Amino acid sequence: MKNIKVIAFDADDTLWVNEPYFRATEEAFSKLLKAYLPEEEVNTILFSIQMRNLELYGYGIKGFVLSMVETILKITEGKGDLELVSKAISFGKEMLNKPVELLEGVGEVLKSLNGDYRVVLATKGDLLDQERKLIKSGLEKHFHHIEIMSDKKPSDYQKLLKHLDCKPENFLMVGNSVKSDILPVLEIGSYAVHVPFHTTWAHEEVKKDERQTFPVVENISEVANLLK
Amino acid sequence: MKNIKVIAFDADDTLWVNEPYFRATEEAFSKLLKAYLPEEEVNTILFSIQMRNLELYGYGIKGFVLSMVETILKITEGKGDLELVSKAISFGKEMLNKPVELLEGVGEVLKSLNGDYRVVLATKGDLLDQERKLIKSGLEKHFHHIEIMSDKKPSDYQKLLKHLDCKPENFLMVGNSVKSDILPVLEIGSYAVHVPFHTTWAHEEVKKDERQTFPVVENISEVANLLK
Repeated sequence: MKNIKVIAFDADDTLWVNEPYFRATEEAFSKLLKAYLPEEEVNTILFSIQMRNLELYGYGIKGFVLSMVETILKITEGKGDLELVSKAISFGKEMLNKPVELLEGVGEVLKSLNGDYRVVLATKGDLLDQERKLIKSGLEKHFHHIEIMSDKKPSDYQKLLKHLDCKPENFLMVGNSVKSDILPVLEIGSYAVHVPFHTTWAHEEVKKDERQTFPVVENISEVANLLK
Repeated sequence: MKNIKVIAFDADDTLWVNEPYFRATEEAFSKLLKAYLPEEEVNTILFSIQMRNLELYGYGIKGFVLSMVETILKITEGKGDLELVSKAISFGKEMLNKPVELLEGVGEVLKSLNGDYRVVLATKGDLLDQERKLIKSGLEKHFHHIEIMSDKKPSDYQKLLKHLDCKPENFLMVGNSVKSDILPVLEIGSYAVHVPFHTTWAHEEVKKDERQTFPVVENISEVANLLK
């Protein structure tokens, strides 16, 4: 990692808390439908509907709410009360209105890297929602460029690098998802540092043996040391 | 318009058909609820709910579907059938799966400008949906850069210009919406060409007297002539 010029940070669960809000909503949602189905089964159906809709809806809260609504239709066999749908809509609005809770060390590390590197935000998810979180976070000033990506496959990173006019060997990605932030970045010949978060969405999980070698740090502030 | 270096094109209803699909869906949706309320009133309520949700949901089909669902809850006073919600979800999926219908002259003008100018796509709406439409359109190869904007206020255009490293006097925007593509662009000291489309969303309408002077062309292919 001698020639790093651009450092990109993932946002959700790397800079700020995200996945726990989805988990809490899933829990409340499955409770809502427990008269129809055991809570665990509700979550299994919701997850499979989300996966089926992913190509069409993409990542983010709006697609999640639409999948909750579809889950209600399926589980109640179209005979449930509209009140269930109303609750799902409210869950979504609550999530969109959540304050941003920064993870430890984030502000400091971004400040310390700025000047020496081009610091970029590279995140999946809904454009408006991510922009809103960035503004709420107060971190906007640290970023040279914000890239909201519809996916994080190797080809998506290649597009980002082309757009940033950056060679693979000059690019470092920092994030919590091995599947989205680490493996595809290593695949294109760039560098990646994994900052694990305690909660990972099932869709982002990878099998242990798929893992290549890459630095793992416990706290994001250690990224600065790795670069020295 | 002597020193134009970057030309940005709006997408929906500038390059391809969009608003008529929303109108057709609104019509089908209001028919669905006509047992509860006259069709015109359904649309009025849907529009007001959309406007109220705009800050939270942003532009695009997913937010539109969520607003349709909320309209069902309101109009049926929570007593409607889940089948109505199921229909709204289907309307949304149909819209997302629509083929892209290019407007006349689009391919030719993009091809003719390429090489002489940096040609950019600058559009509001949902990231994934706009990317999908761009791929379906076959126009991707003509664009140097794709910018999906969460809004099109003067400050959003200033951010885009900063990001493109382009001075206001070197920037030309081409689009169908006076409110989003023309006025804010003139306000920051750049150029804009209006290509009217026969259908305009109520939210995008501006009063005549607000208009400043700017070129209006009937067909997008005339943009090339204006630059000569």
